[in-house]
Amino acid sequence: MAKTGRRPGPTRTREAILAAARAEFAARGYPGATIRGIAAAAGVNPALVHHFFGTKEQVFVAALALPVDPARVVAAVVDGPRAEVGERLLRLFLGLWTAPESAAAFLAVFRSVSGSERAAALLRQFLESAVLGRVAAALDVPALRAALVAAHLVGLAMARYVVRVEPLTSASDDEIVAVVAPVLNGYLAPLPPVGASPV
Amino acid sequence: MAKTGRRPGPTRTREAILAAARAEFAARGYPGATIRGIAAAAGVNPALVHHFFGTKEQVFVAALALPVDPARVVAAVVDGPRAEVGERLLRLFLGLWTAPESAAAFLAVFRSVSGSERAAALLRQFLESAVLGRVAAALDVPALRAALVAAHLVGLAMARYVVRVEPLTSASDDEIVAVVAPVLNGYLAPLPPVGASPV
Repeated sequence: MAKTGRRPGPTRTREAILAAARAEFAARGYPGATIRGIAAAAGVNPALVHHFFGTKEQVFVAALALPVDPARVVAAVVDGPRAEVGERLLRLFLGLWTAPESAAAFLAVFRSVSGSERAAALLRQFLESAVLGRVAAALDVPALRAALVAAHLVGLAMARYVVRVEPLTSASDDEIVAVVAPVLNGYLAPLPPVGASPV
Repeated sequence: MAKTGRRPGPTRTREAILAAARAEFAARGYPGATIRGIAAAAGVNPALVHHFFGTKEQVFVAALALPVDPARVVAAVVDGPRAEVGERLLRLFLGLWTAPESAAAFLAVFRSVSGSERAAALLRQFLESAVLGRVAAALDVPALRAALVAAHLVGLAMARYVVRVEPLTSASDDEIVAVVAPVLNGYLAPLPPVGASPV
């Protein structure tokens, strides 16, 4: 049945919520925006926003078409042996880039972040509160080290998939994992006893 | 004295050479372009291109307004104790980002590379032949490891100076060096005896 009449169909409602979300996040930043405010701007009930998208974090991921839900990143960190956390994160991240739609979404994020301070600020707030803080807390490591892991992953993607530097691009995932996973494990290793290392 | 008459002044000649260089690199790629071809396209003697810029590599750096001459990177790798190569590279790179004009040039490179496959290809060819290959040869390490160092540095810059993720941005250079230099040293460490590691 064709959708007609005064009430917009679910697709149009979804789009209206996403448009309102983009406007609210841009105007108030990630910490300041609320589901209630997004619902009001879209002219819908907050319960409908929850129904379509879930949490504020998931509204953000959908509104900015981000390539990965932070819940998956946190799950990759937490679910499995500590000694393999680097490999789990790396395989999740490399897997995202091999999906064409995720790769395109990452590229769009790189482009908007390097072209706009506002986009960079939004991504920063989101990364800090929804990803890095949680990873650091789950592993009990300093936030600086969680941020360095994120930085290394982003640089690896830039070099391997965007600039396509050799031999990074033609190396297999296994070869990359063999060299890089120990480095990520090192960044995320349990802290040495107090006094042994300043950071 | 004002420059008048038929012969263009040095500034205009310089600009004509740079414009010809950009066109030649875009048309032929980094390996295919030559000083002779650039000079012909600019309508000048090849000796004049050498006089203004030096090598083909230096013409490329000037034409694309790259923030660093690869000769400086190679010098940072070679000049000094092997055990401190990570720290030397890191301090050179962090220093470049604190100079506003270098930071702007890096941002422009990020933007053009994430927006254009042709720009990405040119940067790739240049990095491989002018930077990574030489670093790998100077240290006798696999090219994959030199590329991973470059990838980590680029990601660090993206996170610290573009997205401005905390606590990376407010951390001091010394704090960054304390955690990251050992990682770069690990990537660039002398190879273990044959058979001990596949990469």
